[in-house]
Amino acid sequence: MEKEISQAVIGRLPRYFRFLGELKDQGVERISSQELSRLMHVTASQIRQDFNNFGGFGQQGYGYNVEYLYTAIGSILGLDKKHHLIIIGAGNLGQALANYMNFERRGFIFTGIFDINEKLHGRMIRGIQVRPMEEMQAFVRENDVDIAVLTIPKESAVSTAGKLVEAGVRAIWNFAHVDLDVPADVQVENVHLSDSLFRLSYMINRYDQETKAAAPKKDSQ
Amino acid sequence: MEKEISQAVIGRLPRYFRFLGELKDQGVERISSQELSRLMHVTASQIRQDFNNFGGFGQQGYGYNVEYLYTAIGSILGLDKKHHLIIIGAGNLGQALANYMNFERRGFIFTGIFDINEKLHGRMIRGIQVRPMEEMQAFVRENDVDIAVLTIPKESAVSTAGKLVEAGVRAIWNFAHVDLDVPADVQVENVHLSDSLFRLSYMINRYDQETKAAAPKKDSQ
Repeated sequence: MEKEISQAVIGRLPRYFRFLGELKDQGVERISSQELSRLMHVTASQIRQDFNNFGGFGQQGYGYNVEYLYTAIGSILGLDKKHHLIIIGAGNLGQALANYMNFERRGFIFTGIFDINEKLHGRMIRGIQVRPMEEMQAFVRENDVDIAVLTIPKESAVSTAGKLVEAGVRAIWNFAHVDLDVPADVQVENVHLSDSLFRLSYMINRYDQETKAAAPKKDSQ
Repeated sequence: MEKEISQAVIGRLPRYFRFLGELKDQGVERISSQELSRLMHVTASQIRQDFNNFGGFGQQGYGYNVEYLYTAIGSILGLDKKHHLIIIGAGNLGQALANYMNFERRGFIFTGIFDINEKLHGRMIRGIQVRPMEEMQAFVRENDVDIAVLTIPKESAVSTAGKLVEAGVRAIWNFAHVDLDVPADVQVENVHLSDSLFRLSYMINRYDQETKAAAPKKDSQ
């Protein structure tokens, strides 16, 4: 890839992939950017612009070939490769993520789960034994772990991330409520759940204010 | 609020709120945009521009008043109000979200949790009984529920969202892997976890390609 693709475009690729996967499952063979636009509530010109970042995916005659487009976007997302993934934290969130069967279909192989809580050690989660944190670094080294998923409290997240990087993980999927400071060759994707809930709260609040502003004299409804 | 605030600015507000909360907890009283910039890895001019959307928050003399800024941003995010929240789906993810104590501190009051699985009915999650789905609509009506959190499979998410809207919820925090189609006065915030994991996979993939491109002759390292 020669030119820099914007974060916004990258952010939209998984959604294209999801919709194309559903079309494929429904047996749809071709789709025009207009139809995709209606389905996804995105303008057709946005779709064409986004796809042009990757050479346009050869829309010819009537629309795009769904299977081809799905495979091409999957490949850009690296979903044609296998990734070994471990989960740090075997609480509810760690268990929820371990049980997303769908990830395995996309090449994310769940190989280990770790927790500080002794009571959880040895317990099986989706066929994988919960291990003590002390074994984490050796496990990463011995099992070619690419991705670590952090579902631990923010207090321990930063030091744990440091240990993971030291042991050689290439990417961290971070659910801890803190920003991590890792070397530039380690990829981090944050899922800050409360940031997301606060955005929702903002939208409710803004809607209330706009509604009030639009109808200042009304008392009810 | 008179002018339209961009989605990007709104997206950043919760992060400002988080950092300011930490500064406040550490007893920091004032902070300059330069210091905040270093801490948050955002340019100082970005910070000033973002804040100018809300009147600038009166930076005077040496920096911003941390407590004031924290309170003002919290209020823009609607965190000075109470919201009643229910969770649909009492699986691992639903339980994980119910147990985030921190939400209650921010005014999100967890009042109900619902599941189709009979075995879970009556089970207590953080002091709240799991109820059958059939009771959901009446519960929303009787308990002034503002926010519903959807942690159910995509197959049932769309119809459940319809029922929630009908019963009067104002906002949906959607973890189901599908886009919901709700009226414009219902706010939706999506957390598509696999979209997030796929972005991480994209970053790994791109890093590999750039590294290969930069050192085409090297075999190792």
